[in-house]
Amino acid sequence: MTSQQKPAPAANGVLQVAIVPDSFKGSARASEVATALAQGFSKGAASRQRQVEITAVPFADGGEGTLEALIDAWGTEAITVDTTDALGRPVASRLGLSADKKIAVVEAAEAAGLPQVSDVPRKPLQATTRGLGPLVSRALDLGVQQIILCLGGSATTDGGTGLLGALGAKFLDEHGQQLPAGGGALAKLAKIDMSELDPRAATVQWQIACDVTNPLLGAQGAAAIFGPQKGASEQDVQLLDRGLERLADVLEADTGRKLREQPGMGAAGGLAVCLASYFPVDLVPGWQLVAEVLDAHRILGAADLVITGEGRLDSQSLNGKVVCGVLEAAGEHAEVIVVAGSVDLGDEQLERAGILAAYSIAPGPASLAQLSADTLALVERTAFSVARTYLPLAPPRG
Amino acid sequence: MTSQQKPAPAANGVLQVAIVPDSFKGSARASEVATALAQGFSKGAASRQRQVEITAVPFADGGEGTLEALIDAWGTEAITVDTTDALGRPVASRLGLSADKKIAVVEAAEAAGLPQVSDVPRKPLQATTRGLGPLVSRALDLGVQQIILCLGGSATTDGGTGLLGALGAKFLDEHGQQLPAGGGALAKLAKIDMSELDPRAATVQWQIACDVTNPLLGAQGAAAIFGPQKGASEQDVQLLDRGLERLADVLEADTGRKLREQPGMGAAGGLAVCLASYFPVDLVPGWQLVAEVLDAHRILGAADLVITGEGRLDSQSLNGKVVCGVLEAAGEHAEVIVVAGSVDLGDEQLERAGILAAYSIAPGPASLAQLSADTLALVERTAFSVARTYLPLAPPRG
Repeated sequence: MTSQQKPAPAANGVLQVAIVPDSFKGSARASEVATALAQGFSKGAASRQRQVEITAVPFADGGEGTLEALIDAWGTEAITVDTTDALGRPVASRLGLSADKKIAVVEAAEAAGLPQVSDVPRKPLQATTRGLGPLVSRALDLGVQQIILCLGGSATTDGGTGLLGALGAKFLDEHGQQLPAGGGALAKLAKIDMSELDPRAATVQWQIACDVTNPLLGAQGAAAIFGPQKGASEQDVQLLDRGLERLADVLEADTGRKLREQPGMGAAGGLAVCLASYFPVDLVPGWQLVAEVLDAHRILGAADLVITGEGRLDSQSLNGKVVCGVLEAAGEHAEVIVVAGSVDLGDEQLERAGILAAYSIAPGPASLAQLSADTLALVERTAFSVARTYLPLAPPRG
Repeated sequence: MTSQQKPAPAANGVLQVAIVPDSFKGSARASEVATALAQGFSKGAASRQRQVEITAVPFADGGEGTLEALIDAWGTEAITVDTTDALGRPVASRLGLSADKKIAVVEAAEAAGLPQVSDVPRKPLQATTRGLGPLVSRALDLGVQQIILCLGGSATTDGGTGLLGALGAKFLDEHGQQLPAGGGALAKLAKIDMSELDPRAATVQWQIACDVTNPLLGAQGAAAIFGPQKGASEQDVQLLDRGLERLADVLEADTGRKLREQPGMGAAGGLAVCLASYFPVDLVPGWQLVAEVLDAHRILGAADLVITGEGRLDSQSLNGKVVCGVLEAAGEHAEVIVVAGSVDLGDEQLERAGILAAYSIAPGPASLAQLSADTLALVERTAFSVARTYLPLAPPRG
C-alpha cells in the first residue's frame, strides 16, 4: 500500500506484478478480466523495454461470480445439478469442484437466487433455500472434505431451513406436522427433527462466505434490512422476523449455541443459522475465504504492483469487496491500481483507501451496454496505457 | 517523444511538465482544461512527495477555440464588434488582441461561421465573408502589426471576396456593376477595382492559420470538398467551382500570382485567395502559428513530460490538430500523455504516433451531456491518477 514510502523499482530489476480482478458483473468473468489486464500490461511493458513478472488470477468476494472465479483458478468445469429455484421450480444449477476434488463451492445465488425468480411476483414468505440441498448432496456424494457456501444474492428469508430440510431435517409445528417451505411459516415452528439428517453434513468442513455483519433479528436483521428487496411488505418483514426469532429459540434450546446476535447471521435471509447451530462452520468474509483458497496472500505479498478491477469502484468496494480484500492482502510496499467499468471515488477517497490510481475503461461517452459489449478489449487497452505510464522507459543498454 | 530511450527522471530531480491542451469543444476552454490538468497533476505529484515544475498554457490548432486560447494565454479579454453573419444579419462577434496590442486574432467562424446561420436553410451561393470586414477594420484601427486569421468553420465559398469587399475592393461584372454577395455570383466576375481599398490592409502582416491542404479548384477544391457540408447541391458545387475559377483567372491576370494550385487555398471556401493575391500573407498550419505566438516550442522543448488533451482523440488528431502539433514540437526526450473526452485510438496507433498513453475522462457509462457538464472535475481527477501512476514515490529522505 502507498502509505509506506518505497523507492522506485530498480532500473534493471524485474517488477513483480499481481493481477487479481473481480468479475465485471454482467460483462466479463474475473478470469477473462485477469487475462485482458495481463495482456495489456505485458504489451505496455514490452513497449517500454521493461521486464515484468506477471501473476494473474481471478479474484472474488464470496458473492456472485465466486464460483466462476474459483473454478477458473482451479482450471475445472462447473458440474450441473438438476435442482429447484427459490420458488420450487426445476432449474439446472452449478456446483464448483477443485482440481483435487477436496473442495466444493456452492453459491446461494445459484439455486436460491433472486434473479432466477424475477419472472414472477416475488414471494418472500414462501421463498426457500431447499434447492441448495441437491448441490450440497452432490458435493457430499463426490466425497469433498470442504464445502464453501457463498451467501449473497438469495431470494430467501428462511433461516436456511430449506437447505437443512433437503439434507434430512424436519421442521415441525406443535402438531408434529411439517411446516411448508419458506420463512413465512417459521413462526409456527415447535420442533426440529434431526434424526434423518444426512450424517455427512455434520462431518464435512463448512466454510461460509459472508459479506455483511447484520445479526439475525431485529432492526438490523435479515428480514428488516434485506426483506424489502426480496419483496417483503412491512407486515411480511414482521412475520419473517418473528419466524427467524422462533427458529433461533428452537435452535438455541436444541444445541445450546446462541447465534442470534452473531454478526453475519443476518446474511442471505439467515441462511447460516441452521448450519452454524448444528455444525462447526467457519463464517469468513468472502474475499478472505477466496484469498485463502487461491493462495492470494502469497501472490499479493510478493508483488510490487497490484492491479485489480471490478465492474464498479465505489465506496462499497472498500467495504468487504474484492478491492478491499486486495488492499488488505497486498504487501505494505505494494502499490495498487484499479481498472474498473466505472469509477465513483474521488481523489481523496482513493488516497485514503491506499489506491494509487483508478481508471475507468470507458473510452468516452458510452452506454453501459456499449461498454459491456467491449469490456475485454477496453480493459486490455487501459492496462496498456497504465503500464506505459507506470513504467519508466528502460535506460539504454551498455 | 518515446522513440528515444531515456532514463527515468532522476530520483531527486525536478520533473519539467508542460501542460498544453486544446479546448474540449462545446465543454471547456483550453485554458480551463489546462488549469484543471495542472491542478490534478500537481495534487497527484504532491501525494507522491514529488517536486514537479508545471507550465500550463492553452493550446489551439487554428480552428474553433483558437481566439479563446490566445486571449486566455495573453490574459486579455475579447473585444466585441458589431458586424454581420454569413447571411448578412447583424451579429456581435469577437476580436482577440494581444496584451501588447501588436497582434489581433480573427476567427472566420466568428462572423462567417456555419453554426451561426444554422437556424435557417443554408444558402451556399449567397453566404459571404463580408462580416469579417468590421473585425479586421477594428484591428487596423487599433494599430496592430499582425492579424492572425483563423480559417475553418466557415459557411462561405466566396473566395474571400466578401472580406476584401468590406475593406474597399469592388468586384464588378462586365457591365461594371458590383456583384451581389456570395460565391454564386463570381462566375460573372469581370474586374476587381482595388482603388478604394483600405491601404492599411496591404501593410499589416497577415498570418493565416490553415489546417487543410486542399487546392482552390476542382475535385479536391473548396466547392467540391467543403461545399456539400455548407448546403451546396451538386449544381451549386459546379457553379461555385466555376466562380472560384473565374476569380482565380481575374486575380492572376491582375497580380501575376498563380495561387490556384497552392495547398490550403481551398480552405474556408477559398477565403485566403483574395488576400494572398494582393498581400504577402503567411499561410501556416494552425497549431504551428499558435505555437509560435505562445512560444510553445520553448515550453515543450524544455519538458520531460507533456500532457495534452482535446475533446476527442482519433486519427484526425494526428493530422494537423493540437495533439499532432504537440508531438511535433515536443523535445525528442519528452513523453506525451493525452487526456481526452473520448479516446478512439488503439494501442498500436498510440505507440506509432509517439503517444505514451491516452486516457478518457469518462468515469464509466455516461452520455456526452453528462461528461460535458462535469468536464473540468473529470479532467482534474484523471490528471491526479495519471500523476500518481507516472511518478514513482519519492524515496525516504536522508
